[in-house]
Amino acid sequence: MPTTPHLLLQEMTREEAKSIAPQALVVFPVGAVEQHGPHLPVGTDYFTVEHVSRAAAAQVVEQIPVVVAPTLPFGSSHHHLPFGGTMSLSTETYYKLVYELAETLIISGFRRIFIVNGHGGNHELVQLVARDLTLKYEAHLAAGSYWNIAWDEVAAAGREMPGGLPGHAGIYETSQILALRPELVHEPRPHRDLRTPYVHSPVSPYRSQIHGSWQRINGFTDSPDLADAAQGQRYLDAVVAGVARALVEFYRATEAA
Amino acid sequence: MPTTPHLLLQEMTREEAKSIAPQALVVFPVGAVEQHGPHLPVGTDYFTVEHVSRAAAAQVVEQIPVVVAPTLPFGSSHHHLPFGGTMSLSTETYYKLVYELAETLIISGFRRIFIVNGHGGNHELVQLVARDLTLKYEAHLAAGSYWNIAWDEVAAAGREMPGGLPGHAGIYETSQILALRPELVHEPRPHRDLRTPYVHSPVSPYRSQIHGSWQRINGFTDSPDLADAAQGQRYLDAVVAGVARALVEFYRATEAA
Amino acid sequence: MPTTPHLLLQEMTREEAKSIAPQALVVFPVGAVEQHGPHLPVGTDYFTVEHVSRAAAAQVVEQIPVVVAPTLPFGSSHHHLPFGGTMSLSTETYYKLVYELAETLIISGFRRIFIVNGHGGNHELVQLVARDLTLKYEAHLAAGSYWNIAWDEVAAAGREMPGGLPGHAGIYETSQILALRPELVHEPRPHRDLRTPYVHSPVSPYRSQIHGSWQRINGFTDSPDLADAAQGQRYLDAVVAGVARALVEFYRATEAA
Amino acid sequence: MPTTPHLLLQEMTREEAKSIAPQALVVFPVGAVEQHGPHLPVGTDYFTVEHVSRAAAAQVVEQIPVVVAPTLPFGSSHHHLPFGGTMSLSTETYYKLVYELAETLIISGFRRIFIVNGHGGNHELVQLVARDLTLKYEAHLAAGSYWNIAWDEVAAAGREMPGGLPGHAGIYETSQILALRPELVHEPRPHRDLRTPYVHSPVSPYRSQIHGSWQRINGFTDSPDLADAAQGQRYLDAVVAGVARALVEFYRATEAA
Amino acid sequence: MPTTPHLLLQEMTREEAKSIAPQALVVFPVGAVEQHGPHLPVGTDYFTVEHVSRAAAAQVVEQIPVVVAPTLPFGSSHHHLPFGGTMSLSTETYYKLVYELAETLIISGFRRIFIVNGHGGNHELVQLVARDLTLKYEAHLAAGSYWNIAWDEVAAAGREMPGGLPGHAGIYETSQILALRPELVHEPRPHRDLRTPYVHSPVSPYRSQIHGSWQRINGFTDSPDLADAAQGQRYLDAVVAGVARALVEFYRATEAA
Amino acid sequence: MPTTPHLLLQEMTREEAKSIAPQALVVFPVGAVEQHGPHLPVGTDYFTVEHVSRAAAAQVVEQIPVVVAPTLPFGSSHHHLPFGGTMSLSTETYYKLVYELAETLIISGFRRIFIVNGHGGNHELVQLVARDLTLKYEAHLAAGSYWNIAWDEVAAAGREMPGGLPGHAGIYETSQILALRPELVHEPRPHRDLRTPYVHSPVSPYRSQIHGSWQRINGFTDSPDLADAAQGQRYLDAVVAGVARALVEFYRATEAA
Repeated sequence: MPTTPHLLLQEMTREEAKSIAPQALVVFPVGAVEQHGPHLPVGTDYFTVEHVSRAAAAQVVEQIPVVVAPTLPFGSSHHHLPFGGTMSLSTETYYKLVYELAETLIISGFRRIFIVNGHGGNHELVQLVARDLTLKYEAHLAAGSYWNIAWDEVAAAGREMPGGLPGHAGIYETSQILALRPELVHEPRPHRDLRTPYVHSPVSPYRSQIHGSWQRINGFTDSPDLADAAQGQRYLDAVVAGVARALVEFYRATEAA
Repeated sequence: MPTTPHLLLQEMTREEAKSIAPQALVVFPVGAVEQHGPHLPVGTDYFTVEHVSRAAAAQVVEQIPVVVAPTLPFGSSHHHLPFGGTMSLSTETYYKLVYELAETLIISGFRRIFIVNGHGGNHELVQLVARDLTLKYEAHLAAGSYWNIAWDEVAAAGREMPGGLPGHAGIYETSQILALRPELVHEPRPHRDLRTPYVHSPVSPYRSQIHGSWQRINGFTDSPDLADAAQGQRYLDAVVAGVARALVEFYRATEAA
Repeated sequence: MPTTPHLLLQEMTREEAKSIAPQALVVFPVGAVEQHGPHLPVGTDYFTVEHVSRAAAAQVVEQIPVVVAPTLPFGSSHHHLPFGGTMSLSTETYYKLVYELAETLIISGFRRIFIVNGHGGNHELVQLVARDLTLKYEAHLAAGSYWNIAWDEVAAAGREMPGGLPGHAGIYETSQILALRPELVHEPRPHRDLRTPYVHSPVSPYRSQIHGSWQRINGFTDSPDLADAAQGQRYLDAVVAGVARALVEFYRATEAA
Repeated sequence: MPTTPHLLLQEMTREEAKSIAPQALVVFPVGAVEQHGPHLPVGTDYFTVEHVSRAAAAQVVEQIPVVVAPTLPFGSSHHHLPFGGTMSLSTETYYKLVYELAETLIISGFRRIFIVNGHGGNHELVQLVARDLTLKYEAHLAAGSYWNIAWDEVAAAGREMPGGLPGHAGIYETSQILALRPELVHEPRPHRDLRTPYVHSPVSPYRSQIHGSWQRINGFTDSPDLADAAQGQRYLDAVVAGVARALVEFYRATEAA
Repeated sequence: MPTTPHLLLQEMTREEAKSIAPQALVVFPVGAVEQHGPHLPVGTDYFTVEHVSRAAAAQVVEQIPVVVAPTLPFGSSHHHLPFGGTMSLSTETYYKLVYELAETLIISGFRRIFIVNGHGGNHELVQLVARDLTLKYEAHLAAGSYWNIAWDEVAAAGREMPGGLPGHAGIYETSQILALRPELVHEPRPHRDLRTPYVHSPVSPYRSQIHGSWQRINGFTDSPDLADAAQGQRYLDAVVAGVARALVEFYRATEAA
Repeated sequence: MPTTPHLLLQEMTREEAKSIAPQALVVFPVGAVEQHGPHLPVGTDYFTVEHVSRAAAAQVVEQIPVVVAPTLPFGSSHHHLPFGGTMSLSTETYYKLVYELAETLIISGFRRIFIVNGHGGNHELVQLVARDLTLKYEAHLAAGSYWNIAWDEVAAAGREMPGGLPGHAGIYETSQILALRPELVHEPRPHRDLRTPYVHSPVSPYRSQIHGSWQRINGFTDSPDLADAAQGQRYLDAVVAGVARALVEFYRATEAA
């Protein structure tokens, strides 16, 4: 992992943290521990968002003062509970959890926080935290999911995605884990002839929740056997570049405020 | 308002409601009462979403069994509190409120609910409700904001939108209210030479919350004096058509489940 | 409905609302959407309290500065859930909901709020909100149920009430809806030879809650077929007059404080 | 105190409690610890409601199976916090507290509970608890304030009450404490020429909450120096008789259910 | 009970309470109403902690200004619900309850509070309250369970304890109730040849919670028939002495702060 | 770190997790991110408890089926907020957080959970979670702080501890971090001639909370300059051995249940 002692908040003393707080942007990665099909580790979102956040911060540390908080491993994943291997928080607890962690960063002196999310179930909740804390404190917060943040870069990263869009434990995520932690991918990976319609697409014009959808697709979208490590690396590189761009962009926006 | 006695839940007896519940789609409109610049009524979102939901339901009542619940007038609008004229609910209370109202619809026998949202501050919260109730009950829920649901129709509706996108109390919303309730628009409407960058765009790749943004734009986006009643009617017609399409689409999806 | 643009908060701009806030009394009507026997619409309490609040405010607008907030359609009606056609909020959510709506009226500058209630299940909760907000803010709140507020006027309004007191979906309420929305009353209305003892009378010396009481009376009290539209209009006129009197009375009390 | 070992729940073994539970009525006294003017002990409501509940239960123990739970000394008294000497619970905590205590009585096998309240601030909240638990469990609950329960008996008890109605730390309550715990009344007691209008009368047609009311009357109503021990004893006897009557009445109602 | 009018908060007027508040230490006894085997009253913890707190305060009233609040009879006892005769509060409600009662003592002017606990299920919760309030207010709080506070004194009090440590409804507690309220002990008391391993010892290096443990030991530890009234009195005397010592010790520590 | 792919839950697929769940003991490490004096990293508790939990599990994996969940990095540390560099959760949120994470492990099929705590502020809360979940589910939970679990081993580990007991950011913890992450210790470390009395000792007979205590000792106990890496390694080895012993001990207890 491309980290230096001064990039990770947990490795700083309180004096180092206090010293950097007024100027720095804190990147706060939030993941999930949940089923990812029969083939991917349950820590998939946790590993990915931690990698992406730290690598993106390392890319921009020369341009802007940046520090990465410890990754929150656990997310709002109740829709995956029927499959086993899942630790999850309810909507209300997850909101309070991220709210208080970001709030105490502000109480500790930070004024700029970017919550980088790695799990669909957290997507709305981290945005609500950003919205609500910005009203209460003289602080600036950004929040987004890495696939959205880096949409343009991911789209440009390469070959046609058979499923069109990042799914769950499908080609896209499996490719990334094949690049990041290949030893954790269980073979053979499942195959499907056609992409099963995805439960809830991040670009749908509205949210459509059909009871039992996740069970009907056995907890994964499209066809994981089509995933590819080299393509996964291209995706990861694209995501890191996109998140890095957004970190600088948000930092500049806070300077102008 | 294009309603019939049998379209509105509040006008039914309990027997009528019970009779239609197993087959019907309930449309639940949720709005807001909040400042909309110096020129629009604080009920703007409430009026608009109620009109859109009822008109869309009326359009499809021949195709699918549909009923419209009473509009929830109040939303999550704390970002507008500094301007006056605002009634608002906190994030946690709003979530519980919509959750329990939709849950008791399910307890009363309904199996299909579409929450049609008319205010940006509710956008994430109504989706979370839909997600969470679908896990708990054998029921299907959709949730979305009308401008997203009908994005394609709105984009096709007409002249170049100066601000590019629906803002808040700007050209888009002012046009719609000029069409819907012209007597409530205070003249002269404010003018700006250039569109002030919008606080949080619904198509941003991530959410960027800069403290004090709403105050800096005096609570409205772009230039309301450029709004136009005829164009507002085209927007409303487009939104109604788009929501009507989505109601049928979602109903068909629940039939297939 | 006897409303003018300047009577309804939702029809005002934020500037109009801010301008009137320091002097005005806000009337906040709260209703319910719940079963009302086999013959009355589930919106009975919602329709009635909205009518009463707006009409009472219109009667006194020449005497005191008054504004009517949007009606909260939904109430605390869990005791009616077994009958269908009911949307309801739990005790805790309803308290927070009304608390926050009244609180944000205060934050928006209002100093005098009268919560006019149209549903028995909200009776205690709106009083608690009034009590608690008055302690926290330099503001004055009143809260009451319209049949209590206008008890003297209702008692004087006319013929002997067979049930003695307003029940639920019985002679009293059915008469009022026959006057207000006759097209929504389903005929034939149910008959009972004798009034079934009412579940919880508003003038009982203590509250007696017997499990299953509502089911035993099939969700309505006394004998709805004895209701009468002309008598309903007399009741409504009496209620409007009584609420109007209370609005002025409370306003004068706040002036003396 | 007219108690026997078998009247108080706390003096029973679990076996005795289990044995009596299916048939017995549990009386649950709830009081308050709060300022009662400069002359009465802060435990006034706690002492009174404990005395009344135990004495009333003792009167009827031959007629119905009855047991008295430990008194909850603390109530919802935030309106008295500015005066000192007050321990108080917020609205939400008090509701949950009484709810859970009554609920665990039901879980422990009891089917009939009468919450006897001795403090105005608890009045609405104990009723809500009774209402909500009766919906959830096959159990019957009553809840009321002793002055309401025994209104007829109190009214008949004697001389004209100068204030007309029981106030707070005024003639009525001071008389009762002069009878019950005379050594705790601080002399001389304060005098007022005329009764100061009471903050919130239990028989008002609506609740009127004027900010600062309690401070303006220095935390007590009417003129405590006019209180009288003999009259206090008559009041107490009346209250005990009235509560005893209600206990039997409610027990008979549960038998008929 | 060794009390004087000025020792008990509930017997003071508000003026007396306000006058003593800045200097005094408030002792706040918290107990439980829960099953204590087939032989002890369900009020065992409530009786004991009230006795201990008042007696200890009476011992030190000449040395330090001390006042005893009303005993909270009810505790967090859900683990005893399956046995009947139990009134209990959930973890979250109990925390809020004790928090708010101690907080309002602080709002009423007190600066030193010692929560004396008489029930194992409250042990952690009262400590959390003490911790959290000390951060929020300029006040000092102590919290502990009487058997821990007086551990040295209890250990020195006498004969070998067969169970080694205070259990639940075993030799230790039964001895104390034999001394304190002998008329409430049901005979014959149960016997066991060997001490059943205790569910959760207060001096365990970690907490081990085995599902169903309490049921397996029928709700009591060791062998209650071995209890002895004279030894119980020695234990009570030891506890009172130990708590008295701690009250002075804590008071001195607050003076030095 | 002595881990294997099959020791860490996050590295398993859902199928592996489901397969091991009925037999395995899940070790759930919980830490904190908070100030640790001017010289230690804010991640001290997080690093230590993760190391200890994984190493202890690795020691026993041949004896019992064991899996380690992801470490929860954040704790209940509001007492450290005034010093900066701290992310913290309120008492109520932390309880719900750990409760839900452990609960979803149970829902995912696990029946034995050991929460290993590395931060004093979590000590009571993890025990409450263990208690409460064991009542609700047919599952067994243990919870403890590593210094308590391994008290005997730590006491035997070596030289006289100048402070007598593990403090906060003092000799004990600094020694451990010197062994575990020496590059993160800021030199020179602060010195004190005498050990400042510790705020709250884990073996105190009661909890004494003096307002401002942490500020008076500048956030660390005793004299960190006396810490020693070799001794820190001995402490760590002792802790690992003690926790390993407890894991087996608890596992055996669950087998007997």
